[in-house]
Amino acid sequence: MKYAKLRPESTPSVTAPLCVGLAGLGTVGAGVVALLDANASLIERRADRPIVVTAVSARDRGRDRGVDTARFAWVDDATELAHRDDVDVVVEMIGGSDGPALVLAKATLTAGKAFVTANKAMLAHHGLELAALAEARGTALKYEAAVAGGIPVIKGLREGAAANRLTRVYGILNGTCNYILSRMEAEKLSFDAVLADAQRLGFAEADPSFDVDGIDAAHKLSILAAIAFGARIDFASIAIEGIRAVAAVDIDHAATLGFRIKLVGLASEVDGALFQRVHPCLVPHAHPLAHVDGSLNAVVAEGDFVGRLFFSGRGAGAGPTASAVVADLIDVARGEVGPAFAMPTARLAALGVADTAEHVGRFYLRLTVADRPGVLAELTAALRDAGVSIESLIQRGTTVSDTAGGGGVYVVMVTHAVRQSAVAAALRHMAASDSAVAPPVMMHLLDF
Amino acid sequence: MKYAKLRPESTPSVTAPLCVGLAGLGTVGAGVVALLDANASLIERRADRPIVVTAVSARDRGRDRGVDTARFAWVDDATELAHRDDVDVVVEMIGGSDGPALVLAKATLTAGKAFVTANKAMLAHHGLELAALAEARGTALKYEAAVAGGIPVIKGLREGAAANRLTRVYGILNGTCNYILSRMEAEKLSFDAVLADAQRLGFAEADPSFDVDGIDAAHKLSILAAIAFGARIDFASIAIEGIRAVAAVDIDHAATLGFRIKLVGLASEVDGALFQRVHPCLVPHAHPLAHVDGSLNAVVAEGDFVGRLFFSGRGAGAGPTASAVVADLIDVARGEVGPAFAMPTARLAALGVADTAEHVGRFYLRLTVADRPGVLAELTAALRDAGVSIESLIQRGTTVSDTAGGGGVYVVMVTHAVRQSAVAAALRHMAASDSAVAPPVMMHLLDF
Repeated sequence: MKYAKLRPESTPSVTAPLCVGLAGLGTVGAGVVALLDANASLIERRADRPIVVTAVSARDRGRDRGVDTARFAWVDDATELAHRDDVDVVVEMIGGSDGPALVLAKATLTAGKAFVTANKAMLAHHGLELAALAEARGTALKYEAAVAGGIPVIKGLREGAAANRLTRVYGILNGTCNYILSRMEAEKLSFDAVLADAQRLGFAEADPSFDVDGIDAAHKLSILAAIAFGARIDFASIAIEGIRAVAAVDIDHAATLGFRIKLVGLASEVDGALFQRVHPCLVPHAHPLAHVDGSLNAVVAEGDFVGRLFFSGRGAGAGPTASAVVADLIDVARGEVGPAFAMPTARLAALGVADTAEHVGRFYLRLTVADRPGVLAELTAALRDAGVSIESLIQRGTTVSDTAGGGGVYVVMVTHAVRQSAVAAALRHMAASDSAVAPPVMMHLLDF
Repeated sequence: MKYAKLRPESTPSVTAPLCVGLAGLGTVGAGVVALLDANASLIERRADRPIVVTAVSARDRGRDRGVDTARFAWVDDATELAHRDDVDVVVEMIGGSDGPALVLAKATLTAGKAFVTANKAMLAHHGLELAALAEARGTALKYEAAVAGGIPVIKGLREGAAANRLTRVYGILNGTCNYILSRMEAEKLSFDAVLADAQRLGFAEADPSFDVDGIDAAHKLSILAAIAFGARIDFASIAIEGIRAVAAVDIDHAATLGFRIKLVGLASEVDGALFQRVHPCLVPHAHPLAHVDGSLNAVVAEGDFVGRLFFSGRGAGAGPTASAVVADLIDVARGEVGPAFAMPTARLAALGVADTAEHVGRFYLRLTVADRPGVLAELTAALRDAGVSIESLIQRGTTVSDTAGGGGVYVVMVTHAVRQSAVAAALRHMAASDSAVAPPVMMHLLDF
């Protein structure tokens, strides 16, 4: 795709509406219709032309969606939207990494029409291919809503921080996990109890695994990393750990030590290799991420000239998602579109994969051990032998009632900075000891 | 200015460098050179073409600036940059609302060249005229660095939040004030003591009035308000109050009540009128602005669909400012430029001015009164008579030694939500009382 140096004065006036074909009329698709209705005149002023939905497609034509969709042309097969003369840009709200969403994306871009989506799973798996297709056809692939909902982080990284060599990008990328962890902390409840309640309230899916196992956060992280480091998306190499193993006792100990536990997605470039990881993480109270509560999302980008940029806001829901989708439509209407991943795909680097086991940082360890003399000496010797130095240690005099083995006590430690492989070696040694009542728990600390 | 619907496939390839003429080689101008040198290859990948400085202008040709400027063409009169064939875009780092900066801006835009600036004073006073000139000539006026330094808030409002009717925009817009207030709180020092130290350390100017009297924050606020509300810039109508009157005792009392004092710039649209104010403000600990410390800046935008967006980062300094300037240059190189204030100037509304005295909110009041029986009854009666209801009150049994009159005691109150004019009436009554030892102090609370 080529770009004009500056748009010449002679560019013809375009005051015709930008016509949108909308595929998918769930909560978010209906939210896009509601937003375009509510703020039509404002959007026309900002885009210098109206933005109107002309045709829609969804599974069930008859369903009441709270917005009037009878005024739009209806197509049963979403792919038709790509070929209609009354559609300039397709908004895809179907979801799923493959299947109808991907078919529609390819058809739309092949037809030379702009494609706007919130589909992080599809981008994580097929983003590079779609970006190349958009480039070849001289059209736009836009996806602000795919990461962190209404927060303009794609724009913030792609354009706002574009002058910087970014050292790392990280954040709280899944509102369901942050909601669960926040409630576990505030109400001293277990993961299972909060999850069940969140499902009842509609804050978590019936099958919550995409969220609580970290997959959704990893999809988003892979997109952020590609933009931040000018790299090809590499979802497959992300080390992913969800929040199922986070116990109330860990949250409690972390608080005592000055931390809050958050599910953090983190990417950095280490010696030309891409380091990408999603994991529960102890965040110090002084870090702005520690204060991102409930279902909010937040992204931090650290650049060599700008320093630390922090963005937060609502990461999901009909309103914030529609806000991001329509922001993309306004960019398209204004003609302010360029390469999907901040640079032409041919310039994206194929970075190697950093070995996360070689990562150096501080770690939180929780061991559940038999309550008898000499155990602490055994533990500390095992850590010393593995070269792991202890920064702080908590052992309370209470026995543990909720572990499978029963009768143990918790020993909680924070290490000094050390290679992860060394900690893993020490933990293997400890797990094999007959002093261990339950498997050890290890979590990362946010060190920066 | 007209926009292409979508950039057609036939747009010619432009791989020639974007050539920059740089006016002003102070800390920030030199920072732009340093950044373009340090990240040249990365910027070329992101912009799909090199961005190079070709010509520069500054007051003193011989000065050592820590970057090599001998390789650039030198012009004594910055205005020449507008007319050179080897300059595509002019970056203005001269400063000042009028004078050479304004002459250069007009010459550059008139010549049909893009103009990038960090000059908030010039934009606050002449932004509308310059935006209209850019539109008429089909070129770009870009100014990300003018507000909140490296934080991409102009882009965040202009594009990221463009789908929303914004209800308000506010933030911490002056790093010098935030640094002074943060140190006053942390070290329990007076304004004068911290200011003197900040001047010694180079964090405050020899003449600090632009910063500490709120003028700089107001310049930035006027720009944010124009973008947020689609309104013509109206700097003249901003109610401005700086931080000179904030006393250590106010910071201390605010902390007791659960607040931190920040200089906040706030704009909202009230019944079609523009409400704009810069003032010291008590921010509740639960609000993200309360955790913005030291010289950091932060901006909050609240939209009808997106909810609350929060941006923070470094608001000044060579690195962050250069980051924003070069982000603008990358936008220009990519051809992703549109109307300076988010919509064509003809579509910007000329809003009326909201009467800030009619504002309803909670207030912090500090009264210094004689330590004798009946005074508290007199005060509370005066407030009752003015219709002001008290939410909390602190009177400590210690006499005040640092007031002019001497011998008084402080009575500190937070009101329930009330019209500002009612509070002002009560304060006038109290100030006239012979119980008053020193003038009353009133500050706003951030209520949302």
